[in-house]
Parts: sequence; C-alpha cells; structure tokens
Amino acid sequence: MSFKILGYAAQTASSALATYSIDRRDPRQDDVVIDILYCGVCHSDLHQARNDWGFSVFPVVPGHEIIGKVVSVGAGVKKFKVGDTVGVGCLVDSCRHCSSCEQGLEQYCKEVATQTYNDKDRHDGTPTYGGYSEKIVVSEDFVLRIPDNLDAKSAAPLLCAGITTYSPLRHWDVKKGSKVAVVGLGGLGHMALKLAKGMGAEVTLFTRSPGKEDEARRLGADGVVLSTNPDQMKDVADHFDLIIDTVPYEHDVNPYLSTLNLDGTLVLVGLVGALNPAVSTVPLIMGRKSVAGSLIGGLPETQEMLDFCAEKGITCDVEVIDIQYINQAYERMLKSDVKYRFVIDMASLKKEAV
Amino acid sequence: MSFKILGYAAQTASSALATYSIDRRDPRQDDVVIDILYCGVCHSDLHQARNDWGFSVFPVVPGHEIIGKVVSVGAGVKKFKVGDTVGVGCLVDSCRHCSSCEQGLEQYCKEVATQTYNDKDRHDGTPTYGGYSEKIVVSEDFVLRIPDNLDAKSAAPLLCAGITTYSPLRHWDVKKGSKVAVVGLGGLGHMALKLAKGMGAEVTLFTRSPGKEDEARRLGADGVVLSTNPDQMKDVADHFDLIIDTVPYEHDVNPYLSTLNLDGTLVLVGLVGALNPAVSTVPLIMGRKSVAGSLIGGLPETQEMLDFCAEKGITCDVEVIDIQYINQAYERMLKSDVKYRFVIDMASLKKEAV
Ligand SMILES: [Zn+2]
Ligand SMILES: [Zn+2]
Ligand SMILES: [Zn+2]
Ligand SMILES: [Zn+2]
Repeated sequence: MSFKILGYAAQTASSALATYSIDRRDPRQDDVVIDILYCGVCHSDLHQARNDWGFSVFPVVPGHEIIGKVVSVGAGVKKFKVGDTVGVGCLVDSCRHCSSCEQGLEQYCKEVATQTYNDKDRHDGTPTYGGYSEKIVVSEDFVLRIPDNLDAKSAAPLLCAGITTYSPLRHWDVKKGSKVAVVGLGGLGHMALKLAKGMGAEVTLFTRSPGKEDEARRLGADGVVLSTNPDQMKDVADHFDLIIDTVPYEHDVNPYLSTLNLDGTLVLVGLVGALNPAVSTVPLIMGRKSVAGSLIGGLPETQEMLDFCAEKGITCDVEVIDIQYINQAYERMLKSDVKYRFVIDMASLKKEAV
Repeated sequence: MSFKILGYAAQTASSALATYSIDRRDPRQDDVVIDILYCGVCHSDLHQARNDWGFSVFPVVPGHEIIGKVVSVGAGVKKFKVGDTVGVGCLVDSCRHCSSCEQGLEQYCKEVATQTYNDKDRHDGTPTYGGYSEKIVVSEDFVLRIPDNLDAKSAAPLLCAGITTYSPLRHWDVKKGSKVAVVGLGGLGHMALKLAKGMGAEVTLFTRSPGKEDEARRLGADGVVLSTNPDQMKDVADHFDLIIDTVPYEHDVNPYLSTLNLDGTLVLVGLVGALNPAVSTVPLIMGRKSVAGSLIGGLPETQEMLDFCAEKGITCDVEVIDIQYINQAYERMLKSDVKYRFVIDMASLKKEAV
C-alpha cells in the first residue's frame, strides 16, 4: 500500500534534477507521515545525485535536512501527533539491537543504518527517497522534535551540518574554557564556530584566505589564524584542545597537529579519503595527540543538539531557494558560493503539482 | 667539581663502542650517585651511537635503562639513602614548572626534558652520558625506587620498553575485559603483551610471520592473528578497544584500523616518521576511531609501573651480556636476533679498569 507524491530527482548521474513521482508507503504502526516544509541542501546531495561516490541507485531523490509538520501517524505512534513540527536527518532506520544502537549511536550501527535517501528500507526493500519531496514517512524513533522557538527554515541544516559538528564537540568534552579551532568556513565550519562558542569554548578559525576576520567573529570566533602565515601558526603552537577539520578535500593536516596541545585531538568530519600528505607521527608521539574521525550523531544526541540550539538561539545561516533553483544552487555550491547553506522552501514544489 | 669514571662510548657515527673516561659531576644538593649494576640496551642506543637521527653529539655514551645501588647522596636528598636499589630511565631532568611537569608528565615537558644521554645538563651545560658506565649522578626527582622483589637485571628494560607500553595502556584505560592488540613482537611488543595481560585485558598479538603462537601465549597473549591472512583479519573486524603498535619502521596501519571497535584507538609507540601508506579517514569517521602516539612515561607513572610489575611478577625477558659484547649485540639487534632485550652486566666493565 502506497501513495504518490511529487519530488525532485536525478534520473542519471549527468541529468539535472527534475520533477518525479514518488511512491511513499502507507504508514506502518510506528510511522509518522510528514508534510515537508523545508529541506537543507547538503554537499552529499550533490555527490550522490552525480554518483561521485559510485554507489548511487537512480532515480536519486536527495535531501536529509528535513523539517515538516506531522499530518498523520501510525496506530502505534506515541511520541508525535498531527500538527507537531518535526525533523528528519541523515538516518531513517537502523538494526536497533547492536551495541551501537543500544547506546543511541545509530550512526555507527554494526549492521549499517538506513540512509534517508539512496538506500533501501530494511523491511520491504523499497528505495528510500529524501526530502526534496512533498512528504516523507519515517518511523517515529527516527523523527526529532523541533523546539517551538527554533526558526524552521534555518534549523533544517542542523540535522546534518549541525549534528556533524556538535557530536565531536560533545564527545571530546568541549566546555567553558576549552580551546577549539575550526578548519574551513563552509556549512560545517560555520556551525562548528557557533556551537563551540555556545558551549563556552575559546574559538579560533583557521583559514587559508585573509579577510575572513569580521565574518568569523560574527559567527562566534574569538580569533582567526591564517594557516599560510608561519608567524601566526607559531603563535598557536601547542595551543588547542580540539580541532574540528571540516575540509572535504585532501589537505595537509600536519601544520594543524602542531597547534594541538598535549592530549589534543584533530577530528576529521569532512574529508572522506586518504590523509595525504602523510601524517607525521612526531607530533602525535611527542604530545600524545590524536587524529580521529566522527560521523553525524545518533538520535538522542541529535535531539539534545536541537534543544541546545533552541536554548542558545543557534541556527544555521541560510539562503532560502525554490526547488526550481536547485541545479543552479549545486553549481554555486561547487564554487563555495553560499553563506552557508541553501534551504529549499518546499512550498515551491506545489507550483509543479498537476 | 667532578670525578672520573669509566664508560663505553661511540666516538664517531661509524666507530665501534669502546672504553672512554667520563667526567661525572660531584653530587649537587639534590643528587644521588648511583653505582650501575645493569643497563638495558635500547634500539635508540644504537640509533644515537650511529647518529641515525642526525643530532648526536660525540662522544655518545648510551644507556637509559639503568639499575644500580645508591653510593652517596647530596645533602638535600630526602627520598633515597646509601644502599637503595634504584633505577634511571630516559629522563634525568625537566623544567619542573610547566603544565606538563606539574602533572607529572615530564616526558612532555614544554621546555623539553633532559635526556639521560646525548643531551646537556640544564644547569651547567655539560653533556649527559648514559648507563654504559660505572656510575651516574642524577637528581633524586628523576630516580625510581626498584621494589625488592623485582629481579634487577630483568627489571632494567622496564625503564624504557616497559613504561613506553605501560603508559598508553593506562592512559587509554585498559582494564579487566578490555580488548587489546599488540603489533610487533620485539622489546616493546613483548612487554605490551605482559603488561596488558597483567591489567586483565584480553590480549591478541598481530604478527606477519606464522609460528609465533606458542611464544606469544607464553608471554600472555590469548590469541595470535596473522595480519597477512584476510580471513583471520576479518574475524577480528571491529574488535579491539586499543592497539599498541610497536613497529619501528614505515608500515600500513590501515588493516589494523579496521580491527578497532567503535571509539577504538591505535597508538603508535615505535614509528617515528610518516604514516605511509596514507591513512584512510573512512574507518576513522565510520567508527569514531583514533590514531594517536605516546612517549615513554612521566616519573610518577614510571614508579607506578615498577610497583605494578613487582606486584604482578612482570619483568622483561633478557639476555645478559658483558659490555665487551655490545658491538656484536648491536649487530644482532639489527637482525631482531634477541629475546627480547640485551642487558649489560656492568660488573664486566671492571675488567677494563686500570
Ligand atoms: Zn549531509
Ligand atoms: Zn545497530
Ligand atoms: Zn629506549
Ligand atoms: Zn616542564
């Protein structure tokens, strides 16, 4: 049993996104049906629409930063009711019984969590389609409450960009007085600045291009270090407790390792690939430093992050677009021409409805 | 004011070690004068005698795994008295006031700790000479108590090989039930097996050569994994909490990263250089794993390790040699032909005394 809705899909790796009629399942016992209001545009949307990672199954309907209203619920749903404002992030299911899932770390599910799009439902094997669509049907356990005082459109990217940076900040115990640096000022980087500041840290932005001082300070940075300037780098030698590295392409992490204090950690959240040039073990050994990685966050932590953002008044800086602009938006993202996240106003999709 | 003693020194990077007359300072207020009974032979002795790292200042008198008897003390010495059995490891001084030193982590001294040999005394600038000698003069704060029930000769290597592996096991909180793997079965590796077992961990040896089962089990391993066997590696996927990697040359750490469980850490204690082939960020991100380094241990932790070893009956497997054999011993070390550490019986040096 299913119903038809409208979405935007890539039909092949080289085709522009365009309207597509999607089958959504009728809600199961534990499902929530969500009318989508806003959907953030993540870099991985673009990569999967273009099959950059080689595992796309077309058609791909991207979108995993979803905010909407509950329009109906399955008979067994306890946590949500019609009219609630809710969110859906990168995951819509997991095995729910492995050691990771039992800890609420569904992103690290030993049997691999179900992705919001470009994946398969673990019960009926149907493809998952993301938030560039009118509605989505998701088990209540993978639905987040959006606090009333969070602006819906600028909260959407919290569900991926926000939690991806929040989770390592919390895991590595950032608190008042912690010294945190952020590498890269894009969707992830600007959230890392805001969230680290919200946690009371002393926050520094590493950048390769001068002239970002004012912008970085507006976003919460206490200072900016030009990583191409040896004197500025020397000034922060052995300084930071944690570095959140959001750069999504190959780059040399060695200069940043020198700026970590004893027991400091550099956490990679953007780069999926090889650490080239090679990491030197010298700073690791001489200062018991670590290089680590981190992946989004589990459901309990994502809810915690949303509540934290509501309490601190933190949202994403967004540029709201119509769905018809999505292909141009992708082109601009490739040039980093967005501050800092596109969010689709899904009302625009209704123009296309027959 | 100083006194002459006999030692063994390398006069150049290419000369064999031979007798050399050393000036030892008369004890300062806080100094302990130690008659050396045994001195372990560390790989770094060989590297520094041959100037492999490029910073040797000749003559080099190696040796930083020193066990001896106190023969006199400075007027201000409180912790030791004549007749005590004591040890000296890799460090003989540090700034004593930086944030690392204040935590008892003198190995990470922000002003760089003073090495037992091939370094300069921080007060009078005289060269430091190591344990391949009759006597050494060291501030009491850098002298360790050797518990009575530790066999002196087999305790010597605890002061470098022992603490180098003990410190990361403790820092990454190994305890009963922890799953620990050790890469490499040399001086460091065999101590890592014994110490991890002593802490109650389930201990596995990774090896590239078959036939080490019995030996590894004798040393405390619960199992052995042949890292060249894909099936064996798959059996331990996502398994270990901590891997102590003792391999001192460039090698691929990626296969080991796959065997770390969620939040696991691979700690490098042997390789000083580049992580080639490049580390993939995929296992780091997909399992919040870390690659870290660790350097010997501070004075409080070294004492704790000695006391732990005394309590658990853990010592190093040693081959006792005369000092006259040291050049052959170095040749054998280059072929890994020692189980697992040479220790010099310093009584042999008396044969050379005039
Ligand atoms: Zn995303
Ligand atoms: Zn699971
Ligand atoms: Zn050593
Ligand atoms: Zn210090």
